[in-house]
Amino acid sequence: MNRDIYLDAAIAQAKKSRAEGGIPIGAVLVYDGQIIGLGHNMRVQTGSPIFHAEMAAVHNAGRQPASVYRRCTLYSTLSPCVMCSGMMRLYRIPRVVVGEDVNFQGPSHELRAEGIRVDVVNDEECIAMMREFIAKHPELWWEDIGEQR
Amino acid sequence: MNRDIYLDAAIAQAKKSRAEGGIPIGAVLVYDGQIIGLGHNMRVQTGSPIFHAEMAAVHNAGRQPASVYRRCTLYSTLSPCVMCSGMMRLYRIPRVVVGEDVNFQGPSHELRAEGIRVDVVNDEECIAMMREFIAKHPELWWEDIGEQR
Repeated sequence: MNRDIYLDAAIAQAKKSRAEGGIPIGAVLVYDGQIIGLGHNMRVQTGSPIFHAEMAAVHNAGRQPASVYRRCTLYSTLSPCVMCSGMMRLYRIPRVVVGEDVNFQGPSHELRAEGIRVDVVNDEECIAMMREFIAKHPELWWEDIGEQR
Repeated sequence: MNRDIYLDAAIAQAKKSRAEGGIPIGAVLVYDGQIIGLGHNMRVQTGSPIFHAEMAAVHNAGRQPASVYRRCTLYSTLSPCVMCSGMMRLYRIPRVVVGEDVNFQGPSHELRAEGIRVDVVNDEECIAMMREFIAKHPELWWEDIGEQR
């Protein structure tokens, strides 16, 4: 299997979160080929509703000038939701590589409408990991995307 | 002056941030008349690009079920940017009271398109506080909204 090293790093973050009892979604922020931020969903671990994986990766990269974000690619194991998409639009991160959009689809049209490139891999491991998690913990998953069931 | 007690609380958060050397934007999350989250911009204080005031208020409210967010009002001293608007859309917070949208205008049309009520106060103190900050620290302000100057 010849998987992107950055998507691999995002998947490793998702597995780390799963091992901690958290939601298995991971992300990395890459600037000129270097990972500058690694993160995973922190809802269970820290009780925060804003720490989706993509937000955590950008948080962990710390303060960056606009010129850095504009040369970054964000990798996420799952399609970014409307909050994370909004963060990408704010900082004009020009590209996102999405592990999968089978279990959840964020507003990729809003990204593409602003010239942000969205590449969907639909990696089997990402799909299976999220499918298993949703089956086991539907209430956590719904909470994470603000769904009322 | 007969200002809303919640907007007053958001302004107090903005002043707290200013006193700490930070960006003077504050927010509060209100559920059924009770403040459940207070926050201010944390870029300077913690070095985080995701802690806009609105995000901080929701973070500080901790994990909430969808049913709570759907009865909340978010108060912010400044018009919410696309990231914070995305957070409101994710959790379907049905109303935002905006201290001012003179110094910055976020995508309120995206909120209104989803039935989110946006009430703009254009409070003189909010306007003056932000205007002074931008004049003194333009580079911090541009960084906060991902602008390249």
